[in-house]
Amino acid sequence: MKPIHVGLIGAGTVGGGTATVLKRNAAEISRRAGREIRLFMAADRDLVRAREVCGDDVLLVDDAFAVATHPEVDIVVELIGGDTVAKEVVLKAIEHGKHVVTANKKLLAIHGNEIFAKAQEKGVTVAFEAAVAGGIPIIKALREGLSANHIEWIAGIINGTSNFILTEMREQGSDFADVLKEAQRLGYAEADPTFDVEGHDAGHKLTIMAALAFGIPMQFDKCYLEGISRLDGRDIKYAEELGYRVKLLGLTRRTDKGVELRVHPTLIPEGRLIANVNGVMNAVLVKGDAVGPTLYYGAGAGALPTASAVVADIVDVTRLATADPEHRVPHLAFQPDQLQDLTILPIAEVVSSYYLRIEAADRTGVLADITRLLAEQGISIEAVIQKGVNPAAPAEVVLLTHRVEEKKVDAAIAAIEALESVAGKVVRIRMEELNG
Amino acid sequence: MKPIHVGLIGAGTVGGGTATVLKRNAAEISRRAGREIRLFMAADRDLVRAREVCGDDVLLVDDAFAVATHPEVDIVVELIGGDTVAKEVVLKAIEHGKHVVTANKKLLAIHGNEIFAKAQEKGVTVAFEAAVAGGIPIIKALREGLSANHIEWIAGIINGTSNFILTEMREQGSDFADVLKEAQRLGYAEADPTFDVEGHDAGHKLTIMAALAFGIPMQFDKCYLEGISRLDGRDIKYAEELGYRVKLLGLTRRTDKGVELRVHPTLIPEGRLIANVNGVMNAVLVKGDAVGPTLYYGAGAGALPTASAVVADIVDVTRLATADPEHRVPHLAFQPDQLQDLTILPIAEVVSSYYLRIEAADRTGVLADITRLLAEQGISIEAVIQKGVNPAAPAEVVLLTHRVEEKKVDAAIAAIEALESVAGKVVRIRMEELNG
Repeated sequence: MKPIHVGLIGAGTVGGGTATVLKRNAAEISRRAGREIRLFMAADRDLVRAREVCGDDVLLVDDAFAVATHPEVDIVVELIGGDTVAKEVVLKAIEHGKHVVTANKKLLAIHGNEIFAKAQEKGVTVAFEAAVAGGIPIIKALREGLSANHIEWIAGIINGTSNFILTEMREQGSDFADVLKEAQRLGYAEADPTFDVEGHDAGHKLTIMAALAFGIPMQFDKCYLEGISRLDGRDIKYAEELGYRVKLLGLTRRTDKGVELRVHPTLIPEGRLIANVNGVMNAVLVKGDAVGPTLYYGAGAGALPTASAVVADIVDVTRLATADPEHRVPHLAFQPDQLQDLTILPIAEVVSSYYLRIEAADRTGVLADITRLLAEQGISIEAVIQKGVNPAAPAEVVLLTHRVEEKKVDAAIAAIEALESVAGKVVRIRMEELNG
Repeated sequence: MKPIHVGLIGAGTVGGGTATVLKRNAAEISRRAGREIRLFMAADRDLVRAREVCGDDVLLVDDAFAVATHPEVDIVVELIGGDTVAKEVVLKAIEHGKHVVTANKKLLAIHGNEIFAKAQEKGVTVAFEAAVAGGIPIIKALREGLSANHIEWIAGIINGTSNFILTEMREQGSDFADVLKEAQRLGYAEADPTFDVEGHDAGHKLTIMAALAFGIPMQFDKCYLEGISRLDGRDIKYAEELGYRVKLLGLTRRTDKGVELRVHPTLIPEGRLIANVNGVMNAVLVKGDAVGPTLYYGAGAGALPTASAVVADIVDVTRLATADPEHRVPHLAFQPDQLQDLTILPIAEVVSSYYLRIEAADRTGVLADITRLLAEQGISIEAVIQKGVNPAAPAEVVLLTHRVEEKKVDAAIAAIEALESVAGKVVRIRMEELNG
């Protein structure tokens, strides 16, 4: 059988990894795929780098569209990222009847509905295992492995940079700013870390997983995003005293009222496996009604782990490249005419437990006031610790609440902050048991 | 499109779970599969139970072969277990052009080569996600999700009964016999627990995973099996003092000399995620050259978790039922003409680290003797603890060795047991770092 021709767009970190894996494991990959998979062509603005990455026998161009439209390219691998040129080039490739493999979470979370519709129309596949959690085959698990299940919720550590920072903050007792600098030095964080530490990246990935799990369109614009940059080391320490770890979680849950879609720092019980996922590693916990909880763990980024997912998609597409489109696995797990338009819940309507830290300027009667204001909102308390043994200094009250609608907590916080005996802002971190 | 007709053979625990999941999630499943999946027919010796499990609208028979040959059955689901009738009925179904879904690890580990060859010849699929680790989609991960990788090794907690017993032994400080009774009472262990606690079940599952990972035939007869029934609670305690947990692992590793294929109790560092998989849960750690370590965790048994895997296979087969066989994913990850005949290493040639416990009848000079005998075999020591503070009673010496070929440890143990100052047998437990 004639080799499958891959056209690579973007010869950076992941592009280089993809070229390496295709070459290094060529024999094993074709033993699996049933035909040779050949890196035929690559586009990059830096042709010198591209030549180094791809080797001598690959056709190189500096124009992404030349790959997307080349008649001898079967599969276009888009690795330039972003949602401007990448979008145009992916749509162009689809128009030209190419299958597409992409690692671009932003592109799919924002323009996925348009891209998958176009792919459906043209009878081509757009595969995106590498877009979520790097080398962990979580897309395949959600789309195929768990297809018997009514999926109830997903909780994922899906941003390695943030998880590295949180791990270091806990282990070293360091502040966010210091650890961020270390992460930048180690290459785990970008010079502008906003995309990672403010939850955007996790939000893109979560949006894609929610679409697959629940059969809904991509709705990134409705995803609640709260990052880790304002986390205080104290709260990580207090959480630990109470038996919890703080993780940046992407959480999506199907409820009777709608779908929760939210990224934020979260207290989780230290005994959960996912609470012990440290450093840059990723993990996704999926709860299905039949299978119960399942967890998928591995490297969420990096040249070779991400290339592992890119190349697995290339193998999948190769196996089905000449198959009738109706025999393929649907892009978003559900058949394209079977998507549902479930409401995404605003964060105020989400139900969660909460960790609250309150600084008491004057400690006389403050705990009584606080508990009264919580009770007025129907919020019951699971645990309280009072910090600060020096009567001259302000005391800290740390509370864990039972599950309650977020808007009630908002109201209680506003009332507590208005107390004369309370200084400054109340710190609020959401808390999830992840057990059902 | 006309519904896919499923014929169920065996309406016991997993059969009942399969009927439940197919019915309960019917709408969601057909939204994914693109057509209705209907439980059309079932066979069981107990027709009353079968009627309860399957409902009124299913054709019931007491003859498994009637399902395997029924012209209106598209997919035969074999859930009777064992390798006698199950083998005949699966081969009969294949002969009649039926796709087969099975949860039968023993059947595949022992007769898989014959069954897959026959399926290949007849152009049908034999799917077996439920045969390994229950609801965890590990077969799909190995076969498709990690297809870019040169897989180096797999380490799995793949027998829930044994893991439950080991967890209780550690947490309660109880003996094997007592915990086994509790497990039997809870329904986690069979009346005759041999199959689970002596490693047979884990060996079957490991054999299947090794075939998928390395592209080799099933070779269960060469799998080394050592169970947990002779484990002493003391060794679990000492291991913990040294920072290790004892787990029954299925381990398969590709080395230059051949493939390791072995099931035995294993010390693993307590910091590893897999060391913290407790109770009846399963987890499989897979090391690929590109992706690095990835871990898959979930329920390894039970009606609904296993049904989750069975029904996922039914959905997969449904999507591809009318596709040209050449577009299907190969049964064992590699194309059938691309299997390799790698040697399975005898346990004596496996390289591992070891935990040794030696009872010293007379403590004078015994440690010097032991270390000399180890040194004579080229075995270096990583850690030693000496137990027993009462000079009148025998002391215990606990040693951790560096990595060495097993036959050298065998020789050293024989020499140590021959010492006059040593009482009884040396306890030996293998140890794996699982880090590379």
